[in-house]
Amino acid sequence: MTLDPVLARIDADLPQATERLFELLRIPSISTDPAFKADCDRAADWLVADLKSIGFDASKRPTPGHPMVVGHSGGDAAHLLFYGHYDVQPVDPLELWDNDPFDPRIEETPKGKVIRGRGTADDKGQLMTFVEACRAWKAVHGTLPANISMFFEGEEESGSPSLTPFMEENRAELTADIALISDTSLFDENTPAIMTQLRGLLGEELTITGPSRDLHSGMYGGVAMNPARVLARIIAALHDDEGRITVPGFYEGVPELSNELAAAWDDLKFDHESFLGEVGLSEPAGEKGRRPLEMIWSRPTCEVNGIWSGYTGDGFKTVLPSKASAKISFRLVGTQNPHEIRKAFRKMVQDMLPADCSVSFKDHGASKASVMTTTHPAFAQARKALSDEWPNAAAFTGGGGSIPIAGHFKEILDMDTMLIGFGKDDDGLHSPNEKYDLSSFHKGIRSWARILHAMTS
Amino acid sequence: MTLDPVLARIDADLPQATERLFELLRIPSISTDPAFKADCDRAADWLVADLKSIGFDASKRPTPGHPMVVGHSGGDAAHLLFYGHYDVQPVDPLELWDNDPFDPRIEETPKGKVIRGRGTADDKGQLMTFVEACRAWKAVHGTLPANISMFFEGEEESGSPSLTPFMEENRAELTADIALISDTSLFDENTPAIMTQLRGLLGEELTITGPSRDLHSGMYGGVAMNPARVLARIIAALHDDEGRITVPGFYEGVPELSNELAAAWDDLKFDHESFLGEVGLSEPAGEKGRRPLEMIWSRPTCEVNGIWSGYTGDGFKTVLPSKASAKISFRLVGTQNPHEIRKAFRKMVQDMLPADCSVSFKDHGASKASVMTTTHPAFAQARKALSDEWPNAAAFTGGGGSIPIAGHFKEILDMDTMLIGFGKDDDGLHSPNEKYDLSSFHKGIRSWARILHAMTS
Repeated sequence: MTLDPVLARIDADLPQATERLFELLRIPSISTDPAFKADCDRAADWLVADLKSIGFDASKRPTPGHPMVVGHSGGDAAHLLFYGHYDVQPVDPLELWDNDPFDPRIEETPKGKVIRGRGTADDKGQLMTFVEACRAWKAVHGTLPANISMFFEGEEESGSPSLTPFMEENRAELTADIALISDTSLFDENTPAIMTQLRGLLGEELTITGPSRDLHSGMYGGVAMNPARVLARIIAALHDDEGRITVPGFYEGVPELSNELAAAWDDLKFDHESFLGEVGLSEPAGEKGRRPLEMIWSRPTCEVNGIWSGYTGDGFKTVLPSKASAKISFRLVGTQNPHEIRKAFRKMVQDMLPADCSVSFKDHGASKASVMTTTHPAFAQARKALSDEWPNAAAFTGGGGSIPIAGHFKEILDMDTMLIGFGKDDDGLHSPNEKYDLSSFHKGIRSWARILHAMTS
Repeated sequence: MTLDPVLARIDADLPQATERLFELLRIPSISTDPAFKADCDRAADWLVADLKSIGFDASKRPTPGHPMVVGHSGGDAAHLLFYGHYDVQPVDPLELWDNDPFDPRIEETPKGKVIRGRGTADDKGQLMTFVEACRAWKAVHGTLPANISMFFEGEEESGSPSLTPFMEENRAELTADIALISDTSLFDENTPAIMTQLRGLLGEELTITGPSRDLHSGMYGGVAMNPARVLARIIAALHDDEGRITVPGFYEGVPELSNELAAAWDDLKFDHESFLGEVGLSEPAGEKGRRPLEMIWSRPTCEVNGIWSGYTGDGFKTVLPSKASAKISFRLVGTQNPHEIRKAFRKMVQDMLPADCSVSFKDHGASKASVMTTTHPAFAQARKALSDEWPNAAAFTGGGGSIPIAGHFKEILDMDTMLIGFGKDDDGLHSPNEKYDLSSFHKGIRSWARILHAMTS
C-alpha cells in the first residue's frame, strides 16, 4: 500500500480532523473530580463511536472507575497496540485561563497556529493523531496496513487505579507485537523523538496534626505546637544544600549516566536557557554539578505539589491551625524502589515529629522508572519514518515525566513500547491555557502514517 | 442607688437577656468576608435599636468599612466609655461545627450550660454583659449610675482599619474618664481577672513566585525552582532550635519579667497541663527555659496562620506550582517596634530567596503591646467588685492576645483602659463550635452591675 496518497488525504482532511478533535475536547473529562464522572463516560462513548466509524470493532469496557475503550481492526498483518488516555487534568486556577478550557479554538500566535484548551496536548490531541492516521489509511486503501488494536483509558491523570487489573484480566486481547503511545514531546520543533527512558513516580500526602482543634494564636501562640511550622521544617529538610534528597537510602538504584548516553544527549545541544526562560526562570535549580538535561531525564527529584494549612482566604485570621497537609511526589530513575522509598520517607517524617504531633499518610500511587529495549526493529523503522517527516533526524531521548503504562506493558504483557509524541515544551500541560500546536497535530498524523508504512512494508 | 435590686432584676431577666443575645448572634456579621457586608450593617442596626430601648442616644456611624455604633446616656456623673465589637470571625471549616454557627442555642454540657454559636464569646456575648447591666440599672432606678458612652466597632476581626481615623475625628465625643472593654477571659472558673498587659500583633502575608506559570513536575521537576520548597525553608528558618525567633533585632524591647510579676503569676498556680491537655497537647512548645504563663503573656511569638500552594483538592496533581503563600503573625511584647520588625522580616525573606524567585508582601496591620497604668482608682474599685461576685479574689493578669484599642485609647484619647471579661479557655474563640458559658453571661452581667456601683457610689 502506498504512502503518498495517504499523506495527501491527511493534508486535505485537516479541517475535518480538527473539528473532530474539538468535539472530544469539549467534553470535560476530568478524572480526578467525581463531579465529572458522567463526562468521562461521555468521552469514552465518543471514542467508541469514532472508532466504529473507521471500521473498528470498538466497545466501552466498565471498570470500578472510569471506563476503558478497546477497539480492534482485525486482520492478519503485524499486530500493533496503540494506547492513549481520554481524561484530562483539573483546570484550576480557572481565573488564569483566557478562555473556557472546554471551548477549544484555533488561535494565531507569533509562533504559529495553536489549538487552545484543556487536553489539547495531554492527551486528546496526541491520541487523535494516531486515530486520524488510521482514518486516512482506511479512506485511501479501504483497509489498514496492520492489525491495529486501540486501548484508551480514562484514569491516567488520577493514578490509573483500574489499569493493571484490566490488563491482567484481558491479557490475551491486549497483547500485540509492540505497543505505541503518543503522550510525549518532540525534542525541539525540528527534531522528533522516541523516548527510551522515563522516570517513575511516587505520590504521597501527609497531614500533621498538632492541637485537637484550631486555636486562637493570641491565647495559645508560643505555648502550643503549630503543625504548619512542623510541616515546613520537614519539607525544608527533604533537600540538602547541594540539592540532593535526604530521605535515607533514596539514591540506591540511581545509575550514573553512561558515557555513551551523556555524549548523545550533549549532541542534542539542549538549550536550557530558553527552556527555563520560557517559564520565567534562568538557573537550573536541581542537584549541583549535574547537566540540566540529566536533571530532567535521569536524576530523581522530590517536589511539593501542594501544601495547605490554616486560613487561606482574604484578609487575616489569627488562627493557630490544628492540621497542616502537603502533597509530595518523587520522580524515580534506574531501579529505585518506590515502596522502599515510601517507607523511608514515612519513617523520616515520623522521626522529625516533635512532641504532641502526629502524622497520617495517604498513598497516591507508585511506579518504577521505565527503560525501553531499543533492539526491536520497530525502533529503527520508526526513527527512519520520523526523520523523513521532520527537518532533523529523530533522537532517542529520555523523559522527565512518568508513563507507568510502558512498564506495565513490559511486565504484564511482555511487550516493548515506543513512545512517540509531538508536544512542545511550551504546551502548558497541567497548566492554564494548555495548547497543542496545529503543526504538531498535522505533522503528528503524517508521522504516524509514515510509521505505519515503515513498520509494515 | 442600691445594688441589690439591680442584681435581683438581672437574675429574673436572664431568659429575656439570653433571647436578646440570640437575636444578635443570629446575624452572621463576618467582617473579613465582603459577602457578609449587609449582615455587619444589620448587626449595627440591631445594636442601635437596642441601645435606644435603654434610653441611649445611639446612632450608626458610617466609615469606609463597616459602621461604628455610638451611644450616649448623658448625665453629670463620672463618664465611662464601654467598647465592644459586633463582628465575628469566619466559620470555616464549616464541616467541623456540630450545628449552624449562626443558629445559637443553649446546650447542656458536663461542665454546665453553654451558649453555642459564632460570636458567643468573641465578642457579642461579652459585649451584651455590659449592655444588660445597664438595662437592669435603668429598669430598677430609672437612670444609670454613670454617664455612659457605648462604642462598638464592626472591624475588630479584620484589623480595625477604620478605628483610629474614627477616634481621631471624634476625639471629644469619645473621651471619657476611663475606658472599659469586655473581650478577655476569667483567669479560671473561680478567679476573675483585670488584664493589665496585652501582646501586640503584626500581620504579614507573603507570596513567593518561582516559575511564571504552574509547571508539570515531570517535565520541569528537578530543574525548576519550586516556590513551595522556598517558602518551607523560610518558615523553618524563622525559629532556632531553642524556639527563639531568628528575625534580626526581633528581641529588642523585650523585657525580662520583673521578680514581682513573676512571683504574682507563680501564685496563680497556672495549670498548663490541663490548659494544653484540653486541646490535645502536653508539652509547652515555646522558647526553652520559659514558664508556660510567661510564654503566653510576656514572650513574643511568630506563628504561621495559613499556608497554601499548588493543588490542594482531592486526589493528586503533579504540578510544580508557580506561587506559594503564607500568612504569618508576630505577637509582640514590651516596647518591640512592629514597623522595625516588619522591615527586618521582609529583609530576612528577601535575603533567603534563591535565584529566579521573587516575593511580594501584604501588610495585615500592626500594633504595639499594651501595658496598663493600674494607678487609676477604678482598678482597685473594680477588683473589689469582681472579688465580691466570684469565689476568688480578682487578679491582675497578662494576656496573650492583642486588643490594640487599649493602646489607641491611651495614645489618641489619653484614657486608661480596664479589660474585664468573663470568657473561659475552652470557649473556642476563632474555632468551630465556639461557646460562652451561660454562667459567664449571667455572672458577667452581675459583675458589671457591681463594678458600676463600686465606681460611682
